[in-house]
Amino acid sequence: MTARFPFVLVHGAWHGAWTYEQVIPELAALGHAAVARDLPAHGIHARFPDSFSKRPLDPVSFATEPSKVAATTLDDYVASIEQSIDALSGLGHSKVVLVGHSMGGVPITAVAERIPEKIARLVYLTAFMPASGVPGVAYISAPENAGEMVGPQLMADPAQIGALRMDHRSNDISYVQNAKSAFYEDVSDDAFAAIAHLLTPDVPVAPFATPIATTSARWGSVERHYIKCLQDRAIRPALQQRFIDEANTFVPEKATHVHTLESSHSPFMSQPKVLAALLAKIASQ
Amino acid sequence: MTARFPFVLVHGAWHGAWTYEQVIPELAALGHAAVARDLPAHGIHARFPDSFSKRPLDPVSFATEPSKVAATTLDDYVASIEQSIDALSGLGHSKVVLVGHSMGGVPITAVAERIPEKIARLVYLTAFMPASGVPGVAYISAPENAGEMVGPQLMADPAQIGALRMDHRSNDISYVQNAKSAFYEDVSDDAFAAIAHLLTPDVPVAPFATPIATTSARWGSVERHYIKCLQDRAIRPALQQRFIDEANTFVPEKATHVHTLESSHSPFMSQPKVLAALLAKIASQ
Repeated sequence: MTARFPFVLVHGAWHGAWTYEQVIPELAALGHAAVARDLPAHGIHARFPDSFSKRPLDPVSFATEPSKVAATTLDDYVASIEQSIDALSGLGHSKVVLVGHSMGGVPITAVAERIPEKIARLVYLTAFMPASGVPGVAYISAPENAGEMVGPQLMADPAQIGALRMDHRSNDISYVQNAKSAFYEDVSDDAFAAIAHLLTPDVPVAPFATPIATTSARWGSVERHYIKCLQDRAIRPALQQRFIDEANTFVPEKATHVHTLESSHSPFMSQPKVLAALLAKIASQ
Repeated sequence: MTARFPFVLVHGAWHGAWTYEQVIPELAALGHAAVARDLPAHGIHARFPDSFSKRPLDPVSFATEPSKVAATTLDDYVASIEQSIDALSGLGHSKVVLVGHSMGGVPITAVAERIPEKIARLVYLTAFMPASGVPGVAYISAPENAGEMVGPQLMADPAQIGALRMDHRSNDISYVQNAKSAFYEDVSDDAFAAIAHLLTPDVPVAPFATPIATTSARWGSVERHYIKCLQDRAIRPALQQRFIDEANTFVPEKATHVHTLESSHSPFMSQPKVLAALLAKIASQ
């Protein structure tokens, strides 16, 4: 039995635990245990607007129907991740390597501030790494994120419905192609069809809008890694670099370890073996 | 760190690793590690008929389009499960507790015949447990399965398209209600909507049609458990009992340990805590 710290892998918006389906066995083959769970409002916890299941889609209803997941908070995400960490504690693991992809960077930041002593390493995979007191949402329209392709995919006003809403079942070919370009440019069309099938329409707004008062003494005390994805069209490389620069300014004594992948937003699908090898290297350093 | 054998949890037809999303953390809380993966042709490996994504559905195209997963074999399923077991070996676990739900009973039977020395216990969760040389498909229309509600949900001739095909995105209210009654009668409508979203349309026929030449010396040597689900409308309780009776006749010196749950076909969603407690008890016996 290995004494290495296990991974807790946190997925991003519209996704589920299935994000890491191909990474977990690759990590296992390298001798690393890993767990992934659906965040609240995601995967089996997703809840759907009634207008979503009626086809052809009525775009007006879809643009205005309040989201059933609008009440989900950042604290809900944090509680779910802490539950995974506690379960691993119960299995005898004193610490974990905590990985967040994309939106998942927000809750792992909050978790690391709350329980830094249980986090061996913090890994941001082309993820939001918001500065202390700055909500994630503030970065989406930052100049560093110019060229991002996610915003135009939203089909409702988040402030009105309480969620970031997309239609992953769209029949509109250009909408589907844009979704693939935004997130999955480097996988096959067939693979993207299976992935799009699993994506859910509504992501609660509140966790993105909640600032986290991180401190250099707690969040900043954890060894921090950032994996930049250089062809990312959802979180642009310049924004990824801004997150890194802000963190290094905030905790100058402990600089972010930066790694790069030549990949889209989703290396867990386009190059799971390469990503697993990098994660294993980070965990073993 | 626990020295208990970890669980390998195999899902059923139309499902994915997400089947066990709520069971794995409950098992962890009880001190048991568990892994689940998408079988070939399922979850992120699903491939979709082109007619599936065009709405409104053209029922004639959907009934006749050949399945893209028709070439998937029982050996493919077996290889995937053995890969999970090997990965756990690599992490230091000499044996596993192998659980199969529903159709998942077919490949776990084949795996146990191939590598009985790596299986501490075999658990059939309202699953196919086919007798030696009898393909799974032979049981579907058995008299003991009278009242099953799955067959009428199929929307194409499996022999013609190479798959068992359903439309989990149907707008037909009675079709959706029948699907819920068949598999998920005891979960809420909202929970079922999230589950139905994850179900995929095509299940390859070949693994169901392939007989497994089990032997009493190999498959029969593994401690065998059967969890009967008494309100099951997919695999009827009388058929579950027939599987048990046939196994006991085949290996009279090693009778099946029988457990019961008052649940539908899907206790992993309707009563995950109860199911996890039962699995933990089985693993600890």
